[in-house]
Amino acid sequence: MATTHLLTPPRLHHPSPSPAARLRATASLAHPLLPSRPGLAAHHSRSPSPRHHRRRRAMSVRSSLIDPDGGALVELVAPPDRLPALRAEANALPRVRLAPVDLQWAHVLAEGWASPLRGFMREAEYLQSLHFNCIRLPDGGLVNMSLPIVLAIGDADKERIGDKPDVALEGPDCGVVAILRRIEIYPHNKEERIARTWGTTAPGLPYVDEAIASAGNWLIGGDLEVLEPIKYNDGLDHYRLSPRQLRNEFDKRGADAVFAFQLRNPVHNGHALLMNDTRRRLLEMGYKNPILLLHPLGGYTKADDVPLPVRMEQHSKVLEDGVLDPETTIVSIFPSPMHYAGPTEVQWHAKARINAGANFYIVGRDPAGMGHPTEKRDLYNPDHGKMVLSMAPGLEKLNILPFKVIDTSLLSI
Amino acid sequence: MATTHLLTPPRLHHPSPSPAARLRATASLAHPLLPSRPGLAAHHSRSPSPRHHRRRRAMSVRSSLIDPDGGALVELVAPPDRLPALRAEANALPRVRLAPVDLQWAHVLAEGWASPLRGFMREAEYLQSLHFNCIRLPDGGLVNMSLPIVLAIGDADKERIGDKPDVALEGPDCGVVAILRRIEIYPHNKEERIARTWGTTAPGLPYVDEAIASAGNWLIGGDLEVLEPIKYNDGLDHYRLSPRQLRNEFDKRGADAVFAFQLRNPVHNGHALLMNDTRRRLLEMGYKNPILLLHPLGGYTKADDVPLPVRMEQHSKVLEDGVLDPETTIVSIFPSPMHYAGPTEVQWHAKARINAGANFYIVGRDPAGMGHPTEKRDLYNPDHGKMVLSMAPGLEKLNILPFKVIDTSLLSI
Repeated sequence: MATTHLLTPPRLHHPSPSPAARLRATASLAHPLLPSRPGLAAHHSRSPSPRHHRRRRAMSVRSSLIDPDGGALVELVAPPDRLPALRAEANALPRVRLAPVDLQWAHVLAEGWASPLRGFMREAEYLQSLHFNCIRLPDGGLVNMSLPIVLAIGDADKERIGDKPDVALEGPDCGVVAILRRIEIYPHNKEERIARTWGTTAPGLPYVDEAIASAGNWLIGGDLEVLEPIKYNDGLDHYRLSPRQLRNEFDKRGADAVFAFQLRNPVHNGHALLMNDTRRRLLEMGYKNPILLLHPLGGYTKADDVPLPVRMEQHSKVLEDGVLDPETTIVSIFPSPMHYAGPTEVQWHAKARINAGANFYIVGRDPAGMGHPTEKRDLYNPDHGKMVLSMAPGLEKLNILPFKVIDTSLLSI
Repeated sequence: MATTHLLTPPRLHHPSPSPAARLRATASLAHPLLPSRPGLAAHHSRSPSPRHHRRRRAMSVRSSLIDPDGGALVELVAPPDRLPALRAEANALPRVRLAPVDLQWAHVLAEGWASPLRGFMREAEYLQSLHFNCIRLPDGGLVNMSLPIVLAIGDADKERIGDKPDVALEGPDCGVVAILRRIEIYPHNKEERIARTWGTTAPGLPYVDEAIASAGNWLIGGDLEVLEPIKYNDGLDHYRLSPRQLRNEFDKRGADAVFAFQLRNPVHNGHALLMNDTRRRLLEMGYKNPILLLHPLGGYTKADDVPLPVRMEQHSKVLEDGVLDPETTIVSIFPSPMHYAGPTEVQWHAKARINAGANFYIVGRDPAGMGHPTEKRDLYNPDHGKMVLSMAPGLEKLNILPFKVIDTSLLSI
């Protein structure tokens, strides 16, 4: 992990991009990753060529945007010319099969949403996440990391791996997608993980039922190297911009503030009013060009949430109708699965957006909350999300924008 | 909270007391709080006179010892001349009755074991403790605070208090012991508190059964002012030295390192070997006069633990027999109740000893652990305690001394 920018103070109130950042923004126009049409740019993005890909990895992430956690954006997709060697290497390794949610986490890790994590958590990272919701950097600083990003395996997997240092990870219905190196296998105490993450062990937590209850009794951590960018071939991959791609787009547009709005429901008028109002407030604060990152979550959601394709269709319509200004809005999919872990999860939602360049985060009532699975009440105190967010270690450089709503039924995010 | 020493770097490897510290150490001999007989000094300590009491409050805590969390030791016992006014004030306030464990926590808070806390936690402190195991100082720094130190009240209490800003706290079988000011009342979500503190909600956790299950559905936080030093009149009060008294004693003995050993069981030969070996290691590191704080926990323990009077008798015998050197050992009672919350609780055990001047903390296998209440296994991974301790935010200035044992049945602490 490069740490050259680690001690750079955050630029929370930089009124406009520095000349150097403008230079970089101009430079990025010469070999754009995204077309110049604003607003729904993501619709038309194309996969970068191998040459672009490598150039992108070598570029500095410095700009007027907030620094990623750890100072340098982690990117774990191998350069294309390594692919044959990696495939050959993977053929000789023990295999671990990823569940659909595991693949989504591999995607999250590969693109640096969880910077400075470089792979599924080893035990020391897992414990810090579980107990402190943050992880210590080599320089002693703390970054936020509230959800354990872990990979579970079963007894048979563990036995097959033996003392091999590396394993190959297979997608749910495809071949090898990644290699996990310098692995560490440690016990998966599900009860403790669930209790400390959700603050309850009541049966019926959606993510637990989907991804933990039937998962193996071991966790395997290590350094991840992903063979190729992870795609879902669901017609929505063009919406899935990586933190690097988003940063380039913000730079290209000359953003001097980026405000992120996490959602997992259709956009309502209340949302739109709020986002427009936030832009107005940022302009009043002296920012010249605040850009909205409208950032629906695209990973696992519970069965009664609106499906992603329907939501994306609706978000796109909102922009076409001019309810939100396409010039100052980027719609993109956040590839993370949903935990429904309230105050614990909202920190993850905020932290990941720092890595994509957002320095303002909008938080509503009961973020990432849901009803208690067995009692007639909210699982979380609806005010705790924004309280915890405002106090969380590692999120000091992020500006939290709480909002109050009148009709809360419209606005659960 | 005084924060004048907040940015003073910790003195982890100060090879010997500074001349100024020596001066203070000498000065403290002029009006000793403790007799000069070393080792079992605590046996013979007497209550300080009012004059000493006030002088102690005005003294600087600076010495060669580690700084208390927050920079200045919190002490919440009112000076004796305020007693009549406080009693009169308390008579006009709504009353809250403390359970025995609540009184122990009031004691802990009053003497500054939980510095920089100035009373039972308000909601912002509670949430930080629950989610991050640490609390942010006004200057942005973090101190460790892994256990919620809270006071529960019932619906009737809440109604009686109404919108009054202050309440009087009554001891379990005595009159008013303290006033709690600028109170805040907030919901007591027991399930979430238990899950996040213990990493399980299984029935049969001793502290939960003792102090949470039947407690009220509200928590009341505020600034505590204790009328008089809290005593138990059990023949062991002379062992209950406050952090201030311990610091004075360490200074008096010219300690340049203090290593704390938390225990809730009789001292075995293995313990004694370990403590003597630790002293030897510290001497090898260049310290001239390491002092052992042998610090049995004196608050609530579960029914099958050895009772405190028996343990104190046994500890005293170990010193008399010369197994530990009375010259370099102080035996004192740590007034905290026991949670049996493993990796979460061991942080509290360590943090409290920082406030008493300890800069080395000995940690064994499965600290503060116990069997799972409903499954045939340890509740916690026995290695997690020392791992979590070594990574905990706010404990950076404490040196952790892990030890391995051969016969673990002898050495559970």
